[in-house]
Amino acid sequence: MKKIPVGIIGVGGYTGLELLKLLLTHPYFEVVFLGNTQGQSKASHLYPSLLNVLEQEVQISEASDIASKCELVFLALPHKSAMEFAQKLLEFQVRVIDLSADYRLSLENYERSYTQHLDPKNLSHAIYGLPEYNEDLIKNATLIANPGCYPTATLLALLPFAPYLAEQSVFVDAKSGVSGAGKTPTPNTHYCTINENLFAYSPLQHRHQIEMEEKLSFFGQRKLNIHFVPHLCPVTRGMLVSIYARLHQEIDPLEVLQTHYAHKPFVRIRTQPVEIKNVSGTHFCDIFAKRSGLDLWINSGIDNLLRGASSQAIYNANLMFNLPHDCGIPKIAYVP
Amino acid sequence: MKKIPVGIIGVGGYTGLELLKLLLTHPYFEVVFLGNTQGQSKASHLYPSLLNVLEQEVQISEASDIASKCELVFLALPHKSAMEFAQKLLEFQVRVIDLSADYRLSLENYERSYTQHLDPKNLSHAIYGLPEYNEDLIKNATLIANPGCYPTATLLALLPFAPYLAEQSVFVDAKSGVSGAGKTPTPNTHYCTINENLFAYSPLQHRHQIEMEEKLSFFGQRKLNIHFVPHLCPVTRGMLVSIYARLHQEIDPLEVLQTHYAHKPFVRIRTQPVEIKNVSGTHFCDIFAKRSGLDLWINSGIDNLLRGASSQAIYNANLMFNLPHDCGIPKIAYVP
Amino acid sequence: MKKIPVGIIGVGGYTGLELLKLLLTHPYFEVVFLGNTQGQSKASHLYPSLLNVLEQEVQISEASDIASKCELVFLALPHKSAMEFAQKLLEFQVRVIDLSADYRLSLENYERSYTQHLDPKNLSHAIYGLPEYNEDLIKNATLIANPGCYPTATLLALLPFAPYLAEQSVFVDAKSGVSGAGKTPTPNTHYCTINENLFAYSPLQHRHQIEMEEKLSFFGQRKLNIHFVPHLCPVTRGMLVSIYARLHQEIDPLEVLQTHYAHKPFVRIRTQPVEIKNVSGTHFCDIFAKRSGLDLWINSGIDNLLRGASSQAIYNANLMFNLPHDCGIPKIAYVP
Amino acid sequence: MKKIPVGIIGVGGYTGLELLKLLLTHPYFEVVFLGNTQGQSKASHLYPSLLNVLEQEVQISEASDIASKCELVFLALPHKSAMEFAQKLLEFQVRVIDLSADYRLSLENYERSYTQHLDPKNLSHAIYGLPEYNEDLIKNATLIANPGCYPTATLLALLPFAPYLAEQSVFVDAKSGVSGAGKTPTPNTHYCTINENLFAYSPLQHRHQIEMEEKLSFFGQRKLNIHFVPHLCPVTRGMLVSIYARLHQEIDPLEVLQTHYAHKPFVRIRTQPVEIKNVSGTHFCDIFAKRSGLDLWINSGIDNLLRGASSQAIYNANLMFNLPHDCGIPKIAYVP
Repeated sequence: MKKIPVGIIGVGGYTGLELLKLLLTHPYFEVVFLGNTQGQSKASHLYPSLLNVLEQEVQISEASDIASKCELVFLALPHKSAMEFAQKLLEFQVRVIDLSADYRLSLENYERSYTQHLDPKNLSHAIYGLPEYNEDLIKNATLIANPGCYPTATLLALLPFAPYLAEQSVFVDAKSGVSGAGKTPTPNTHYCTINENLFAYSPLQHRHQIEMEEKLSFFGQRKLNIHFVPHLCPVTRGMLVSIYARLHQEIDPLEVLQTHYAHKPFVRIRTQPVEIKNVSGTHFCDIFAKRSGLDLWINSGIDNLLRGASSQAIYNANLMFNLPHDCGIPKIAYVP
Repeated sequence: MKKIPVGIIGVGGYTGLELLKLLLTHPYFEVVFLGNTQGQSKASHLYPSLLNVLEQEVQISEASDIASKCELVFLALPHKSAMEFAQKLLEFQVRVIDLSADYRLSLENYERSYTQHLDPKNLSHAIYGLPEYNEDLIKNATLIANPGCYPTATLLALLPFAPYLAEQSVFVDAKSGVSGAGKTPTPNTHYCTINENLFAYSPLQHRHQIEMEEKLSFFGQRKLNIHFVPHLCPVTRGMLVSIYARLHQEIDPLEVLQTHYAHKPFVRIRTQPVEIKNVSGTHFCDIFAKRSGLDLWINSGIDNLLRGASSQAIYNANLMFNLPHDCGIPKIAYVP
Repeated sequence: MKKIPVGIIGVGGYTGLELLKLLLTHPYFEVVFLGNTQGQSKASHLYPSLLNVLEQEVQISEASDIASKCELVFLALPHKSAMEFAQKLLEFQVRVIDLSADYRLSLENYERSYTQHLDPKNLSHAIYGLPEYNEDLIKNATLIANPGCYPTATLLALLPFAPYLAEQSVFVDAKSGVSGAGKTPTPNTHYCTINENLFAYSPLQHRHQIEMEEKLSFFGQRKLNIHFVPHLCPVTRGMLVSIYARLHQEIDPLEVLQTHYAHKPFVRIRTQPVEIKNVSGTHFCDIFAKRSGLDLWINSGIDNLLRGASSQAIYNANLMFNLPHDCGIPKIAYVP
Repeated sequence: MKKIPVGIIGVGGYTGLELLKLLLTHPYFEVVFLGNTQGQSKASHLYPSLLNVLEQEVQISEASDIASKCELVFLALPHKSAMEFAQKLLEFQVRVIDLSADYRLSLENYERSYTQHLDPKNLSHAIYGLPEYNEDLIKNATLIANPGCYPTATLLALLPFAPYLAEQSVFVDAKSGVSGAGKTPTPNTHYCTINENLFAYSPLQHRHQIEMEEKLSFFGQRKLNIHFVPHLCPVTRGMLVSIYARLHQEIDPLEVLQTHYAHKPFVRIRTQPVEIKNVSGTHFCDIFAKRSGLDLWINSGIDNLLRGASSQAIYNANLMFNLPHDCGIPKIAYVP
């Protein structure tokens, strides 16, 4: 069988690398184009771990050139660059999965949180790629806005409880591995800063808060105020989320979760608190919940680079091309 | 000047070691007795880092013997052993600072959370050693119940806001370094378990929850329900706490904190989220707070072994012996 | 095609888990028996990361029972238990790959370093499973002694230079991740011991020294004295080896390596010092070498649990069953 | 008693911070000038850990201004900047301890390894500040070249054995914490690069090799070729060194060490391999050694920022001002 030719633009960052790693073993997709904004080189020069594994060239290229080679392109670019590139690719009828924030929000929310939108036309038909909630629309999409890592872990945990929440206010205390901060060296990602350290950043003002609120409203029909406090933690990958909320009735949280996700194989309901080590290296989102009276704690964990970015993108690609949902989707954690 | 002779029982654990390290440079206390339950040895054999620093013997001993040598004894023993030992020492008129949970709670709360209390008589006059709130009683105490690490970080952060809280329910999401789990090797403290990992444990049921509630009621005159979710994190020392609560009026959180702690030099009010690296190695409790409407996030950090245990014990000792409050109290963090 | 039924005995340890992970995606082997010495349980109970991935039972069982189900058994047991079990399995004509030390050495060397050997008969025909050097014998073996992690990294690096060494003495400075010390919690594997630490252990007396010397003599026809200093490092997996030796002529070390391993796809010759991150998660052994005059430094790195144990065992199994050498053998590193 | 006024130039880096931390509690020195090349700010703004500890300003300033305030200046600047600044200060009769490489080597060696020397006049009388070997000269010096971290750990370990070495070639395998690579964020110091990683850099060509050789020749009267392989390790601070060499007679290595350092309280002879955790936070250099026949392994450990830089500088300052040698010198490790 001829494989479906795909491209990755922005292979130089962590999510670009994860996309590449997943696609190298995917049975139906074949990476025919690797693009980077920082100049041409061998993939194994950019990533020495790929020596003897992949001898492909990473290139700088034109949208038209990519479009002539690929049926699908994954964009692992910073926001703004992403929409500039996506717009061109879509003109050539190439399908696009964008891992940036550029197509995730309504025009109004986007421009309030980021910058002026350069491609409102495509934004209007972009589909939010959260497969558990949006499968049918994803299947027919030409442009997928791949969710952020924080929203993925939060939405999957919170949506089942949306009908039971007593109040608009929900607190989300999220802990992310350092790879979530990107590959560019900064004072915060210096080993001596974050090793033996732990701190919150952008509390109650992070952009992912708006993404969560908009999607809760869309998928959960609930207008909630998310008070979001992300933390940077001394682990490379993985993300753990605690959600604190108030219920209006004494439900059994695990039963709610089990029923809600009965047919969703990549959401695992735990009977103990979630460990990120059990999901690192996989597409799984593990969820646990417990209440005390009407006060509820929901606890979820994902691999921020996989379920929070690259394996979710591949899953969306599988849906778009009508492939078996789980093909090429990693299930076996890196443990130990 | 003759120094005040003191003893440490239970020097084999992490808090015992920290007590010893602090007392070695204390200008007014002199460690004349080092006790361990695991047999006699040189201190520098038990702790190779003390070679050429301390040649003292660690001994097994009788309360009467210790009482004849020491004016004050620090107990760094597990609960239950602590009250057995404290009881005997107090009969000999030695003053005691107990770092275990044995004298922290009311009889009723203790027996509900731990076990039968063996020394209700002394429990009735034990003083909770949180210096910012209990200075006068500590000065005249013969028996101090040194607070737990989680309650210390939580109470110092929450008490200033007690008058402004709208609801009984408060969520506390706490992250502790592995040293908080003790020195005995267990599956959870195995490097391969907790490295590159992060997880909650004993959620909504940890014993420190009761300690927090009882002391909030005592110092803050507020009956609150603390929903407490502690986490184990891949750092050796340090503790970070996030408290989520609802206000009944739109206060300025930093102003509340600054006013409340204006004359408390070991509570530092931050204008940015707290980093545990700034407090590790010190007695400082750093606090930051921010609100969104009436929803409040309070953020505090301490060194779990120092402010959460051993330097707090030394501070209490300074108060009991009418010494300058900050003598021997560490201020300079281990950074980097 | 019917898959070849295999068993793993000792699935409760790290190498047992890695074997299981590799076999779960192997195209030709099927795990039909999971044995553990610590009692029956679900695999996903023993390893929560396997929830929804593997619902098999881990069992305690008899050799006869295993033999009736499996054509090949991997033994991931401590030494001594391994030979007791292997002996029984071999009586039933099951093939065995033993990951312990029990069949690696000559009878004399074994009894000098370990204990009395209980199965000299099978020891006499056991084949040392270092595929790059022993492929033909492995293909026809019924009992494979899978090499230790330190000898694997050392032998692969040192053997190409055996003809050029001027002296008998060779120094090996090896650094291992904590998983090499096993899953049982000990003071040395406590997070607070090894985090922010680094130390040598068993210097100049480690048992792997004898394994290295015996195999150098066998594969390299050189009687060398290996002075071996292993270190424990604060990483979970990975091993880095530095070998210091003296040459009798001014060779080009990289050329020697490239020529020697020209047709060995799982040995990668580097032109820069080796990083363990490039091999963690893979079967690759990366090697670099450099000299200054006649003084030579050789540098190799492997994943201690994979190339140093479990993927090497699978590779040997592929050879024994005449399968494509690299099937099921991991090539893509965990990076980042 | 009036304290001796001192200054630190280059307080923005790790060694500058460590100098500041040590001087804050030093009984005889008082920091009256804090200089930084990156602009004026509060010390507690540059180092948030110093909030409520030090309210001093960090300034940009002229040599003449500093000279009018300080009797001694510590230079924690990059090489080249250091000699430019030192030269000016020395004109004003201020004493200087330079932590850079600028005054460590002979003119010839310096210019071969670094760049053109701008201050040969002062270089000619600069004293190498290794107190165990150079005490008398240090006492009368006006300009101290503070040794590098690698040379400190290597020279202290190797010099006692200089008379017993059979060959010119010595191998040094050194492992450094990330703080040794400086505070500027780089790809190698990114948390995701070095966490769970380990690698050598600049093998057999590091500049510290020349410093070692020159000083071995000076203090040990031995012309040796040091083959030096430094490694970067995932710890913040600490350095461990392994030296491999050949003896010409069967000495007792521990006896050699004990005799050699009998009166040097900051060199501790171990009877087990060195752990960096036992020295981190202190000025101690721990040394262990063992031989097998005539093959010798020497093992030393230091805190790279203290004994390898800042506490060594303070020790030299104590000598220069005829103060008790150990005043302000840290002895108590950060353990756990």
